[in-house]
Amino acid sequence: MRGFVLIAACAALLPAHADEGMWTFDNFPAAAVKRAFGADITPAWLDHVRLSTARLTNCTAAFVSSSGLILTNHHCIESCLAELSSKEVSLLQLGFNAPARSDEKRCPAQHADVLVGTENITDAVLKSDSGLNEAQANIARKQLLTSLEGACQQASVRAKSGKLECQAVKLYQGGQYFLYKYKRYSDLRLVFAPEADIAAFGGDPDNFQFPRWSLDFSILRAYEGNKPARTTSYLQLDFSGPRVAQLVFVAGNPGTTARLQTRAQLEFQRDVSLPIALLRSSELRGRFIQFGKINAGNERIILAPLNSLQNGIKVWRKELDALHDRAFLDRTIDAEEQLRRAAQLDSPDPWDEIAEASQRERALYLPHLFLESGAGFSSALFRNARLLVRGADERLKPDQERLREFIDSALPWLQRDLLARVPVYPEIEQLTLSFSFERMREWLGPDHPMVRRLMNSETPDELATRLVAETKLDDAALRKQLWEGGKTAVDASHDPMIELARSVDGDARAIRRQYEDEVEAPTLAATQRTAAARFKVYGTNTYPDATFTPRLNYGTVQGWVENGAMLDPVTHLDRAFERATGSSPFKIPASWMKVKTRLDLSTPFCISTNNDIVGGNSGSPLIDVAGKIVGLMFDGNIHSIAGRYWFDPKDNRAIALHPAIIREALDKVYGARQLLAELDGK
Amino acid sequence: MRGFVLIAACAALLPAHADEGMWTFDNFPAAAVKRAFGADITPAWLDHVRLSTARLTNCTAAFVSSSGLILTNHHCIESCLAELSSKEVSLLQLGFNAPARSDEKRCPAQHADVLVGTENITDAVLKSDSGLNEAQANIARKQLLTSLEGACQQASVRAKSGKLECQAVKLYQGGQYFLYKYKRYSDLRLVFAPEADIAAFGGDPDNFQFPRWSLDFSILRAYEGNKPARTTSYLQLDFSGPRVAQLVFVAGNPGTTARLQTRAQLEFQRDVSLPIALLRSSELRGRFIQFGKINAGNERIILAPLNSLQNGIKVWRKELDALHDRAFLDRTIDAEEQLRRAAQLDSPDPWDEIAEASQRERALYLPHLFLESGAGFSSALFRNARLLVRGADERLKPDQERLREFIDSALPWLQRDLLARVPVYPEIEQLTLSFSFERMREWLGPDHPMVRRLMNSETPDELATRLVAETKLDDAALRKQLWEGGKTAVDASHDPMIELARSVDGDARAIRRQYEDEVEAPTLAATQRTAAARFKVYGTNTYPDATFTPRLNYGTVQGWVENGAMLDPVTHLDRAFERATGSSPFKIPASWMKVKTRLDLSTPFCISTNNDIVGGNSGSPLIDVAGKIVGLMFDGNIHSIAGRYWFDPKDNRAIALHPAIIREALDKVYGARQLLAELDGK
Repeated sequence: MRGFVLIAACAALLPAHADEGMWTFDNFPAAAVKRAFGADITPAWLDHVRLSTARLTNCTAAFVSSSGLILTNHHCIESCLAELSSKEVSLLQLGFNAPARSDEKRCPAQHADVLVGTENITDAVLKSDSGLNEAQANIARKQLLTSLEGACQQASVRAKSGKLECQAVKLYQGGQYFLYKYKRYSDLRLVFAPEADIAAFGGDPDNFQFPRWSLDFSILRAYEGNKPARTTSYLQLDFSGPRVAQLVFVAGNPGTTARLQTRAQLEFQRDVSLPIALLRSSELRGRFIQFGKINAGNERIILAPLNSLQNGIKVWRKELDALHDRAFLDRTIDAEEQLRRAAQLDSPDPWDEIAEASQRERALYLPHLFLESGAGFSSALFRNARLLVRGADERLKPDQERLREFIDSALPWLQRDLLARVPVYPEIEQLTLSFSFERMREWLGPDHPMVRRLMNSETPDELATRLVAETKLDDAALRKQLWEGGKTAVDASHDPMIELARSVDGDARAIRRQYEDEVEAPTLAATQRTAAARFKVYGTNTYPDATFTPRLNYGTVQGWVENGAMLDPVTHLDRAFERATGSSPFKIPASWMKVKTRLDLSTPFCISTNNDIVGGNSGSPLIDVAGKIVGLMFDGNIHSIAGRYWFDPKDNRAIALHPAIIREALDKVYGARQLLAELDGK
Repeated sequence: MRGFVLIAACAALLPAHADEGMWTFDNFPAAAVKRAFGADITPAWLDHVRLSTARLTNCTAAFVSSSGLILTNHHCIESCLAELSSKEVSLLQLGFNAPARSDEKRCPAQHADVLVGTENITDAVLKSDSGLNEAQANIARKQLLTSLEGACQQASVRAKSGKLECQAVKLYQGGQYFLYKYKRYSDLRLVFAPEADIAAFGGDPDNFQFPRWSLDFSILRAYEGNKPARTTSYLQLDFSGPRVAQLVFVAGNPGTTARLQTRAQLEFQRDVSLPIALLRSSELRGRFIQFGKINAGNERIILAPLNSLQNGIKVWRKELDALHDRAFLDRTIDAEEQLRRAAQLDSPDPWDEIAEASQRERALYLPHLFLESGAGFSSALFRNARLLVRGADERLKPDQERLREFIDSALPWLQRDLLARVPVYPEIEQLTLSFSFERMREWLGPDHPMVRRLMNSETPDELATRLVAETKLDDAALRKQLWEGGKTAVDASHDPMIELARSVDGDARAIRRQYEDEVEAPTLAATQRTAAARFKVYGTNTYPDATFTPRLNYGTVQGWVENGAMLDPVTHLDRAFERATGSSPFKIPASWMKVKTRLDLSTPFCISTNNDIVGGNSGSPLIDVAGKIVGLMFDGNIHSIAGRYWFDPKDNRAIALHPAIIREALDKVYGARQLLAELDGK
């Protein structure tokens, strides 16, 4: 009950509603911030924050020292921890604390990208499709983006600044195109991670909940030339954290939002894609859980995939709830109608065209999902087999004619992931493949040609078991040999997983092509028209849907009203101990119990703010006007999940770890004094 | 390709569309049948068919000899087969063929009800609530039904005809009430069942599919006084089966339809109840499948629950698809609007009242589902514990004040089920309970008082393991002692499952009461008004929604157009052998492979008809004008699942087993000559 009165008093000082928006750094509404809070957000401030923030493969992170130290969430590096683990020893469960720099462990498949420049290529892209039909235009557009990315990357190699990763970004659903130029740190090493029991305290039940007590942080270090990277742009931690109602910023990479999608697109998600994703994931969750009960080794290796799956289930479940909110759908329909009337577009009506493409998508969805998008062959071994088979074919083509994931500029990273020596557990591969085959047969039907071909004499289980037992693709040396041997080597291979990938590739490519021509192409052509209409009618003082690229937003530290009561925006350590049951996921690890009496139980633990963030923002720094880190975003509340579709200032809240609990943990629980000194800038 | 041309030619002879409707026997549209087909359906024909047809606990069946022989589906007696099995020996897998009558095995929990009389009690029921508010009226109505049922049953005991089961039935959503009087056969014994591999050939993938080759029949026998019952009303099998396009009837007990539900009620199912059911079932499916892989014993005991679960998943998935059909919802909205305008009802508008109750239902749904409806405690042992705890309390009350499932007339059957000696597998109990607790924590949240109480120191798994290990309720003698000992005995019990049932009973009863008062009562009050309006505007020449009570409908043998091609309505044995892969669920058992050369491969196997049936009709006889059985209904095609909401004559088809394949199997595969002779009336 500590803060209810305080908050109620403070609430009057806040703006009427939170400040929605995931702004690009080049279009940040500094004037609005000045008006509302009196704060000066200068171009230099913006540059510094952007250059101090990085995109991981799946998350956001911040540089927090001049020697490459990186702060992010624990759940952002779960796969790194799993890859550095075995069936016997799980760094996820045990945590990790490098005694010295020489003990820092390289993450096999992680990298950090810092956005160092952007280039507007909208005109070139929009011109590329003149005179072409929709399918041709879609292909021409991709070819142009491939060549622009390649040219940009080659130019960077010749320049002094060093090689950059150039990636085309579509903003405002095709209203704008940019080349984003990143400096990539590809040697990231694990410095510190707490035990999963405290990092994910509350587990799936508490995920997306607040009040909250999850110590969801970890520390990596970027290396260059086998030495700690010299990172001149970084953000200092301010361990005292923010005040309630204080102005705060989140810099990060929100993954995907669908706030500008049309009614037809939303209904497709509501009626087709989300229900199917939920059904598949729920069954897989059941299989994972039951698999994990067999012994402690199984439990260890299934932990990371299960966590990720359960997170997905919660997100999709609440997204589905959001789409069932009739008031929201009515608003979308109204907004569409208003824009349609205001824009007076020539026939054909682009919203109708999107609806038609959406109808076609319903017909193509299942074969595309199962044959091309991975649902029919869920397995790391198969994924590698497909990369080898397709890679062999694609690399023989000119760059512009390849599938986009195989273009020259993408190959080094694809190759690194393909050849990484990470553990592959045959029992999990067998489980997910058997599941994939069984559901392929259910959803495509037992008479689908692919189903007849694959399962004409073997059950899903038998087929999965044989493939996993007989393939040798878990051997990184073999993968290297096949990758480097190219088409000759791959064609000569009789590895059963390679043979499987080869035998389905024709059908998979065909459905992909049909999908791109009949769904993607007309949808993009029509959305470019609605995007242009939106610019025309409403101007450009808006923000684009999230695209997992750098964005900045502002807000304040605040709670919200739940069941009629105002929630305190700050939690404290004492309540974590009260909440503990002694069993996961409500178990406080021994390392903490041992030193409990020495801990300051009034240490702030988590904070809620009204910043507008979504998945991908995990690991984002919460920054004050001075540019100091005053929190580490790791989640949103349950209402924030609807943020994929709209931002509700009333109850959409972001959740951050308070820096004070990071200090308390590093200092008193983990004895990481050297690390603390580095974070203090000493 | 055999029959496409034939069918196309015949199609012109058929009525423009199939004849929708699940008619009560007292309101069968004989005149319409006469007009369309020239057939005379007399009152005597109707009585004979009704008296020859029985309702099982979950299905329909027909008497097929004068010595109590009963024909139904294999899947209808799956639970009987499972109850007569063990972890080592599964009658489900092996089948059963009683060499002599003395070998026929009693099903522990099955019975067959024959409707021998009905009594219209509408006036009394509709008068019972005058002057009461909705919640009081709901209670008064139930009290009246309890006393009418009790009086009817007692009167039957005094009459010559023998004791009857009297059950109140609500038709037309409360527009009519009847007392249905059944003669109950409670000693049913297993005579014959084929192996699951052929009975459910095609398994879940082929479920609700056609063409089809599932030998889904079984034979029971009713006993009275430990002798085969003398059943004077029975239907003879005509092994030659029906002709294409022939007029056929289905007598049976369709379970539930929702064709008269309002938009608000349909949206509730679409947005809330179906998605939740699908999520829970999908995860449980995953747990069951993984559990079954551990060893052959697990596989045997999980087979029946898994089959039932998968059937539910397919049904709910397609029901959800049906509700996402916007044209259908638009029709519902239009129909509502038309009736609203035509009926000119006084305010408040009953459709609005149902919508409001539906909103309240959204808020109460999860606690009701988990605490009262079983989702939180899915386990046979818990179910028995709750029956003992509640039964002890309820039996102390006057009959009319009890929960309806504990009224005097229901107690003998409740007691029989409670005390039946059927196998309970602790490993499955542990699995389903652990799942229930874990999902209760997920859906009600870790801070729900019940969750805090149950799981404050144990994980879901630990709690489930302890309860199952320590309870003694698997002992039928203990259950008998507690049941007969009543409240004193139950109160004195420290069995942990009894303690659990006791500790949640207050909360569970409270949410049930709230649900009944705030959702059920106003919904029923409003639907009685819409039902009256419908009678007033459209008359009574309509059929009521299905209520698992005897109905009759008519139709013809016919295929339908799928993907532009007309499907032949008859399949044949040869294609079953072609379809077989050698592995379940496409495995033809050894008994058939052994005699394959002696079989007539042109034997008809399955038939599709346009009769309007749904779940509950399984095991229904397909009858010709002469009153002979020409097929055994066991399924519908994939489009038939939408039949819960509307009947589409274009492609909703029922699926029956052809009698010829029953003869071929009994004669050449199973050598059941005596049984065949009895079926032939010899």
